[in-house]
Amino acid sequence: MQSLEELKHALRAFAAERDWEQFHSAKNLAMAISIESAELMEHFQWVAEQQDLALDARRREMVSDELADVLLYTVRLADRLGIDLLEAAERKMQKNAERYPAAKVRGQSKKYNEY
Amino acid sequence: MQSLEELKHALRAFAAERDWEQFHSAKNLAMAISIESAELMEHFQWVAEQQDLALDARRREMVSDELADVLLYTVRLADRLGIDLLEAAERKMQKNAERYPAAKVRGQSKKYNEY
Amino acid sequence: MQSLEELKHALRAFAAERDWEQFHSAKNLAMAISIESAELMEHFQWVAEQQDLALDARRREMVSDELADVLLYTVRLADRLGIDLLEAAERKMQKNAERYPAAKVRGQSKKYNEY
Amino acid sequence: MQSLEELKHALRAFAAERDWEQFHSAKNLAMAISIESAELMEHFQWVAEQQDLALDARRREMVSDELADVLLYTVRLADRLGIDLLEAAERKMQKNAERYPAAKVRGQSKKYNEY
Repeated sequence: MQSLEELKHALRAFAAERDWEQFHSAKNLAMAISIESAELMEHFQWVAEQQDLALDARRREMVSDELADVLLYTVRLADRLGIDLLEAAERKMQKNAERYPAAKVRGQSKKYNEY
Repeated sequence: MQSLEELKHALRAFAAERDWEQFHSAKNLAMAISIESAELMEHFQWVAEQQDLALDARRREMVSDELADVLLYTVRLADRLGIDLLEAAERKMQKNAERYPAAKVRGQSKKYNEY
Repeated sequence: MQSLEELKHALRAFAAERDWEQFHSAKNLAMAISIESAELMEHFQWVAEQQDLALDARRREMVSDELADVLLYTVRLADRLGIDLLEAAERKMQKNAERYPAAKVRGQSKKYNEY
Repeated sequence: MQSLEELKHALRAFAAERDWEQFHSAKNLAMAISIESAELMEHFQWVAEQQDLALDARRREMVSDELADVLLYTVRLADRLGIDLLEAAERKMQKNAERYPAAKVRGQSKKYNEY
């Protein structure tokens, strides 16, 4: 897999071969993203934050699979809605840069609306 | 933004400039993905499935931003864990292809473990 | 189990017997609620809305367990924060009644801020 | 509000007055629980665990409202499915007691399936 574009087409083919487009409403795909993200989060639920970036091989593969699931459904939903994900990401990063100027928020975790 | 790789580096720089690496534990980033995915889902919460792929311009921009947020945090968490997202996606798609053979699941929405 | 109050005390004892208070930060418990609610949602993910209130016995028990898990962690987090859940529910219902006057929203699913 | 039973009836009346039963599919209500739980979690997203049980008055009210929302939709979904929540909670606590014997898991946060 070389790019998000290639992944998008692979997911289209996967759904088409299974006649699954009928289930791929925005509602269902958004639910799927949310469910997969909870499964991802579950791996870090009871872990102390200081230790959670060091995963053993077995855990690492499970986490990789959950990260992949989140990505797959995100790419699929964007495709269904005709949204270019990298373009959306670039625009959102510009908004974030304006919202959280480095000079103002350095080292702070508070949300912008609490300043 | 041309690729996930470029996005990964942009996110690294964004966090570094703000001294935010300290907050980017796997736990916090997984929570962030989950929260953003819920904000995405909220747009489709009370909508009938038959109508949810047609968004007006204002809704479309909001949904684009939420999809972008999910992607940003997913790319960031994968980077923090040293996981290659496209590689993970490819491996997961292979698993899915084995788990859901087209001939067996065509037009069915039931989960594999209910067959 | 006769009341939320009784449930609260049962959960306190359960945690104390296992020395689990140390893991019951607000952050961890809020994550737990979110994860359990995703597991609940998973049962309705690919189901058409028209059919989803009729559950067979096996599915019904699984859904009951997930609903229970959401409730258990919600009661536990409220207890840890010293919040009276029924009081909070009553106050929130009053806010909802003001926000969504019956005469104005009857039969409409749009959110208040879109009126 | 004296009990979950009273709350259940209040929620029934609230929905009936607004003709909102039509939107209260299990799918939509499960989504609602998940969305509210993410809004709850958001309050603890970037907070260190050691500090998160001490809330100032303003934050406390917001958290109370989110806890209430989770409870309201949980009670509502259980009612739509004809499930007795306190009974479900009691049965689930019995399962948990068997799954996590105090003598075996004391002071451990690992999940049962990792033992």
